[in-house]
Amino acid sequence: MSQRILRVGIVQQVATTVVADNLARLSQNISALASQGANLIVLQELHNTPYFCQTENVCQFDLAEPIPGPSTDSFSALARQHNVVIVSSLFERRSAGLYHNTAVVFDSDGSIAGKYRKMHIPDDPAFYEKFYFTPGDMGFNPIDTSVGRLGVMVCWDQWYPEAARLMALAGAEILIYPTAIGWDMNDTPDERLRQLNAWQTVQRGHAVANGLPLVAVNRVGHEYPESLQPSDPNSGIRFWGNSFVCGPQGELLYVAPSDTPDAHIVNVDLNRSEDVRRIWPFLRDRRIDDYQHITKRFRQ
Amino acid sequence: MSQRILRVGIVQQVATTVVADNLARLSQNISALASQGANLIVLQELHNTPYFCQTENVCQFDLAEPIPGPSTDSFSALARQHNVVIVSSLFERRSAGLYHNTAVVFDSDGSIAGKYRKMHIPDDPAFYEKFYFTPGDMGFNPIDTSVGRLGVMVCWDQWYPEAARLMALAGAEILIYPTAIGWDMNDTPDERLRQLNAWQTVQRGHAVANGLPLVAVNRVGHEYPESLQPSDPNSGIRFWGNSFVCGPQGELLYVAPSDTPDAHIVNVDLNRSEDVRRIWPFLRDRRIDDYQHITKRFRQ
Repeated sequence: MSQRILRVGIVQQVATTVVADNLARLSQNISALASQGANLIVLQELHNTPYFCQTENVCQFDLAEPIPGPSTDSFSALARQHNVVIVSSLFERRSAGLYHNTAVVFDSDGSIAGKYRKMHIPDDPAFYEKFYFTPGDMGFNPIDTSVGRLGVMVCWDQWYPEAARLMALAGAEILIYPTAIGWDMNDTPDERLRQLNAWQTVQRGHAVANGLPLVAVNRVGHEYPESLQPSDPNSGIRFWGNSFVCGPQGELLYVAPSDTPDAHIVNVDLNRSEDVRRIWPFLRDRRIDDYQHITKRFRQ
Repeated sequence: MSQRILRVGIVQQVATTVVADNLARLSQNISALASQGANLIVLQELHNTPYFCQTENVCQFDLAEPIPGPSTDSFSALARQHNVVIVSSLFERRSAGLYHNTAVVFDSDGSIAGKYRKMHIPDDPAFYEKFYFTPGDMGFNPIDTSVGRLGVMVCWDQWYPEAARLMALAGAEILIYPTAIGWDMNDTPDERLRQLNAWQTVQRGHAVANGLPLVAVNRVGHEYPESLQPSDPNSGIRFWGNSFVCGPQGELLYVAPSDTPDAHIVNVDLNRSEDVRRIWPFLRDRRIDDYQHITKRFRQ
């Protein structure tokens, strides 16, 4: 089968407390990647701001915006200007007291191709997302663009095989996860390595199980709670970078560094999925007659 | 939390056409591992015979046996004699014209603790399993034994996140896959490596997604169709060994060689799952309100 190359640009950044500074670097990276031929550019989770979920603070709802709104206007203009599809990740204000963690996809003509509201919401020490984000109510539906049907999800979704499968069953051609994950530096080096490997492995597993390429774009850099640098250097989150792209056998095509920003283009052949699914026809043999208990919380 | 160590013995063998020879080596390995302290011994898929599914031949149904039957009597005696739980994999004759690929678990007192009939049946060149095996009709249910609740599945099941999840939701404490997978030596070395890595990765992904340890035991050695050694050395299947055990973060605890038999004990702490699930509470956040389309063949 002939190739169908998608040139995927990934933007892994350090976030500062100055939104305009983050936006300026996003714009520069998008421009640079587009000029190098990227067809699709994927940004990290909540790229406009610091990762504000390290504490629960009602003032931080001020960071949220309507969709469409100022940020979508800005990324829409960048997509149109550079003729590139952009996957962004925004803090959505849907109504008073109703906020979501929402990925917005812009087609290369600047239109909003679609959005996805993060379905699985974590809540761990320093990741107090259940305080900020109402769980998504738009389901697991891929977004059609001029470069293909994109299975866009967000961060915590990446641990759920159900989510990846539902996107694949709806015809997604690639799985995409803007994300924000990092280390608690109080953990041992061994534990930190296990966490990083688990994060990469479970996503490569989704690629294998569904015969689809996958893109994960993570933050990098050390962020302190509410951006106040305390005396304890182990406080806060050390975002671990390692943004990566893999093919439909889970084979790694690119891995970004763990400690520095990165903007990089990776060639992904969307037609390889059909070759791989012909030798490994997992979709053919699914036992859909006996999966009904997947919708239970537990079976005991 | 205090440890709860399960000493898992894995038996990776070369199969010959002489069933008595295979059984003798299985018995020796079980005896040796039990004497070294194994509590649980896992055998490879269809360990009694060559991998007969390389061709479709009605005569090979003669290899099937009722359950209980001669093989279960034999493994039952070994389990009792050595006071060890055994996971076996048999070609089950259920009735005339009705055969299954069935894992049988023996408790350490020699009783049959339960069985699992392979649910997902492959059919690829040289793996003509749909000819031989009726898909299982017992669902995805773990088997209770004196050493824990075992999530036993078989080979092709290992590519399906749904199967692993259903076992986890039913309280499985460990995922176990007897398997028979290998290379077509006509494939390039790169392709062979991608296949091996994909196989390991998707299973480690199940371990991560479910916070469970996992054991996969594979055949090793080169088997030709119907065991006739032809002039083309690339014909047949080169079973790739690489039996492995990983922990609940997908971390590899042991990997067997790719080209030689192996009998090895791996210590698995069943209580680590609770620690891991406390930091990564994936079960808490599953969107069971929106997984219903998992039971569809496709969503288009």
